[in-house]
Order: sequence, then structure tokens, then C-alpha cells
Amino acid sequence: MNPLNFNATCPVPLTQYPHVLLAHGGGGRLMHQLISRLFLAAFSNPLLDTRHDAAVVELPGRRMAFTTDSFVVRPLFFPGGDIGSMAVHGTVNDLAMAGARPLYLSSAFILEEGLPMETLWRVVCSMRDAARRCGVQIITGDTKVVDHGKGDGVFINTAGVGVVEHALDIAPARVRSGDVILVNGDVGRHGMAIMAVREGLAFDSQIASDSAPVHETVRALLEAGIEIHCLRDLTRGGLTSALHEIAEGARLTVQVEEKLIPVREEVHAACEILGLDPFQSACEGRFAAFVAPADAPRALALMRTRNPEAARIGHVAPAAAPTVLLKSAVGTWRLLDLASGEQLPRIC
Amino acid sequence: MNPLNFNATCPVPLTQYPHVLLAHGGGGRLMHQLISRLFLAAFSNPLLDTRHDAAVVELPGRRMAFTTDSFVVRPLFFPGGDIGSMAVHGTVNDLAMAGARPLYLSSAFILEEGLPMETLWRVVCSMRDAARRCGVQIITGDTKVVDHGKGDGVFINTAGVGVVEHALDIAPARVRSGDVILVNGDVGRHGMAIMAVREGLAFDSQIASDSAPVHETVRALLEAGIEIHCLRDLTRGGLTSALHEIAEGARLTVQVEEKLIPVREEVHAACEILGLDPFQSACEGRFAAFVAPADAPRALALMRTRNPEAARIGHVAPAAAPTVLLKSAVGTWRLLDLASGEQLPRIC
Repeated sequence: MNPLNFNATCPVPLTQYPHVLLAHGGGGRLMHQLISRLFLAAFSNPLLDTRHDAAVVELPGRRMAFTTDSFVVRPLFFPGGDIGSMAVHGTVNDLAMAGARPLYLSSAFILEEGLPMETLWRVVCSMRDAARRCGVQIITGDTKVVDHGKGDGVFINTAGVGVVEHALDIAPARVRSGDVILVNGDVGRHGMAIMAVREGLAFDSQIASDSAPVHETVRALLEAGIEIHCLRDLTRGGLTSALHEIAEGARLTVQVEEKLIPVREEVHAACEILGLDPFQSACEGRFAAFVAPADAPRALALMRTRNPEAARIGHVAPAAAPTVLLKSAVGTWRLLDLASGEQLPRIC
Repeated sequence: MNPLNFNATCPVPLTQYPHVLLAHGGGGRLMHQLISRLFLAAFSNPLLDTRHDAAVVELPGRRMAFTTDSFVVRPLFFPGGDIGSMAVHGTVNDLAMAGARPLYLSSAFILEEGLPMETLWRVVCSMRDAARRCGVQIITGDTKVVDHGKGDGVFINTAGVGVVEHALDIAPARVRSGDVILVNGDVGRHGMAIMAVREGLAFDSQIASDSAPVHETVRALLEAGIEIHCLRDLTRGGLTSALHEIAEGARLTVQVEEKLIPVREEVHAACEILGLDPFQSACEGRFAAFVAPADAPRALALMRTRNPEAARIGHVAPAAAPTVLLKSAVGTWRLLDLASGEQLPRIC
């Protein structure tokens, strides 16, 4: 986006307030201006516009999903996305992982004093656009400002509410031996997109984040009557962490095959340079689905209509103790270990 | 609380991990340990324990209230409260202000690398205790860690969900000329408690924050059939900001009398030393209720059974343009102006 054009549309007078001040979080006139001219200008809807302490809505059903996520990614803008769209996708996806239809988001900003107002406006516009694309409304919010050096530009928390409109119980404990494991696309791209920017790596083809909403894919699976046992998005800790969580929750063994797991060439290359593991690198638009074996081919076909890289990567087996096994390209099996966690700070 | 006893109960081995590391937010083994040993140990309930991406609950009704609030107060611990209990009270109170019965909270932590683990445990225990007292469950959460110098110890976001179980529409637009304005106790104490600690002020009697949940008081008013038109908690910007918001929302004049507004002696003293206005100082357990005149005496009596300092402070009058007027102790009327916002950073 052209920053000049962008600048021109920022509804807070940039000559007067080029940067966020502590007073923008102080509860007085400047805070009210920031909320009405910037946040309400972008997110406006009848519920948010009431500016009440809490939004009151009539849900289309009583079975509700509720989730929260904070976003502290740096840099704020990266190939394929930014903190604003991620904050929407991440929470929409968490709701989708419970099989819910995402409806409403909250947005809470922790701003660092000195943040360029134009940067905030860009982030807020990105959130607005992402929310529109996802069909969700931001109906309640909060803004805090911390002193310079006590934050890092912008942190965003989004909580989300959705409705569960089917009878399935989608949870780790529902996973059964024999379940087939599918992923909805290539893995590891978001983490490597961020690391490549930070480390200044240049490749023939730039690595773009996979940040995207997945609720429509989940909805298609549900509407097709696929017997879904569990869904898990591959965020922090990547595929490895997600598989471990499910193995633990189900008290079963997860077996996946390296050659079946889609990883793009440039992600492999970046991982090799940085000494990182693509299976531990976060995605922001990818999930693993654990489905009944009879429904797996149909589920995979549905996923592939949306992303041809979707793949069947393994299955679930009985276990004395829960574990995750990886069959290497040469056919040997090894434990797929959980990372200690140092490798990828602040990728979401 | 005795820090030694406290220390002894911290479920994360403090000798091994005396401080929060970046890896505690990295999605790997250390993050899973922190979540299971510290957060789940404190907040444990069947919904949270599923550790799914979103919690799924059956609401007792479809009319839902939804709110969010981030807490960046410093210091983390202060007379009368701490960031943990505040993060629960604040969101419970925002739900109560919409006339909702608070049910579920999310909790999202942004931790600074190097935060003493024992400090985090104290905060988490305080949240747990506050949630129990308020009768709400923390059912979903998130943890991020930012590098040292990019945060400030702990920031907490709590979002909240409640149900609205009455037919009233409680909102600024419902306020009518003639409505009586009540407050549920003395005002300005929380902001001054924080400022007194920061500025090292010593008084004969220490100023303790008024941080407390108010949902039971609201519930009592609702159950008594009081015709409530609007409720607003007196947080950032204090009484002045709340009255301005309602005046704007209702397009009416709010008239209050200085001598009717309860402010404690030590708060007056601190305000004089610091050159601050008690009506602009935040409370964290106080709200203004706008009620139909016929119900006002009964509403005030109900409030006083919980806090004898509750008071009738003014009323609503017609207006060409919305405004807030204060009748001074000597009987003259003046505009009660909204602060620019610089005076009290990071009090919540």
C-alpha cells in the first residue's frame, strides 16, 4: 500500500498528533478523540458505536465458543501479512478449531508512547479489512498506552466468540486409533517469513506468511458431514507442537511421514541456513484435522479444492504412552521431539 | 501475604527457572510446562483443562454481553490490590455495567523476559482468588513473552462473557431528563492509591485502592426491579469522564453537586499535594447509576446496605448541547471539564 495515500486517509490529524502520546491512554479528551476518530472510524458498527462498557448481542444459539490470543509479532509488517490481520485470523482460527462459526471479536491495544499514528492506522485498517473478509464484527475494545521503552510499538489482544451449530464434540480426547491426519497446506511458512525478514535473508522467491483464515475450510468439512474428531492450528511450535498436544490429550501415538508433509523449497532453504526445523516453525493459516478413516479421502478432496497442497500426513496408533513418531524420507522411524522453545521468539 | 510461604507454593521449580525466559513463550517444552504447572495449576477447571484452542460452553441464555480490558498498571502490587485482582474485577465490572451476570473470563498474559517467576505466581494466585470471589471461571487463555526491555513485567488482558437475564436496555441512550445519579461509594481512591505509591507520599492513613467487584450490587438493584437507565464504572478519567460519556451518549446535561460527591479526606490531601482532581482520578470498584427518579430512594438504600458512603450526587436535565455541570461548595455552577489525559498514566 502506498504510504502517502495511506497517510492521507488517517482520520487523526497527523500534523497535530504524529505519534501516540501517554495521554492517548489517560481517559481524557485525547483518548476519547483517538477512540472516536481512529478506532470507531475503522471498526464502526452499531454494537461498537454504543461505546458501552460491554456489548450486548443476541447469539443465534446457546452453545458458545470463547477464545483469546495476544499478538506481539515483530516486525509489525512482513511479507504476506501484518500484526493487524494476524490478530483477526488467529482468533477466527482458534474459534474454527473448536468447530465454531466465528461471530464477534474484541480488540485491545497496548500502544507504546511514540508509536507513529500512521503505523497504528495501517494496523487498524488491516484489522478492519481482515474482519470484513472473515465475516466477523469487532464489537468491543480497549486502548492502553505505556511509556516509551515499556512496550514495543503495538501489542494486540483479540478475544473471540462464536457459536457451535453442530452436534460434534471436537476435542483432543475424541481422537481414536486409526484416525487419519490431514493438513490444509504446506507448513512452516509463517515462522520462516518472519525469520527471513529479521535475519535479512534473500531468496529467489520471497517467503510470504501463510496467515489466513481457515474457518471456511472447517465449515465446508462440517457441512459435508465429515466425522471430525479434532482440529488444531499449527501456530507456535508448528506442526510438532500441535501433534504433541493431540497425542497427549488423546493418550495415543501420532505417526506422520516426512515425505508426506508439504514444505516449500524456500522454507527448507531458510531452515537450513538458520539451523531450524520446518516442522517446529509456526503457520498462521494451517491446521491439522484428525478425521475418521472412512471420511478421510472426502475430507482431503474438500481441502484440496481450497488449497492443492493439502495432504494426508499420517495416522493415529494405539500407545502405552503418548508420543509422536516421524518416518524419515529413508524409511526409519524416530521420535519427533518437542522443541525447548528458544528458536522462534515473537513470531505471533 | 508472606513471600516465603508464597514462594514455597509456586509450582514451577524456582531454583531451575527463577525468571521467565523467552522460551516460556516459544511454543515448545518450556511453554507447555509453564501453562500446565503454573496457569492450569491455579485456574484449573474442566473447560480450561481441555486445553483446546477455544472453550465451548452452553450459555444459560442467548442474550450475551462481551467485553475486553487490558491492564498495564504499575506498580504491579499496591495498597488494596494488584494487577491480577484488578484484571478480574475490571472485566467483571464492565459486564455488570451492561446489566449482565458475569460468567466466563479469558486471561492473556504478555510477560517480559526476566520477570521473577514468583511474581507471576503471586499475580496468577490473586486472579484465581478474585475469580472465585466473583463466581466466574477463567476458561481460555494465552501467554506471550517479549524480550527484556520490550514490556514491563506483566500485562494482562481479560475478556469476559456474561448473560443478560432481564428485559431492561441499559445504555447511555436510555438516560432521560430527570434521572437521578447515584454513586456506590467514595470516588477517586484507586488513582490516588497508585499515585501515592509512585510519588512516595506518606499519610497518616494509607490510601488503599477501591478495587472490588460491583456485580452483586448491580444484581441487587436489578432484582429489586429498579428502573436502571444506565450504569458506568468510574475507571480511567474518573467520575468526570464517565459523566461526560453519558452526557454525550444521552445528548443531555448532567448536573452534579460537589458537596454530595463522597471523597475521602486522604484523597483530597493527596490530590492537593499532586495538583490533581479527585473527580478525574480513577476508581476500580465504583460506578454511577442513572435511575428513574421514583426508584432513586430505594436504589440508594440498597447501595448503602453494601457501602454506607453510597450517595445521590445529582440529576439529568434537558440540554441544547450535552454538557456536565458541577455546583461548587459555595453554590456556583461551572462546567466540569474533561481532562486532557496527561495526569494519570498507567493507573489500570
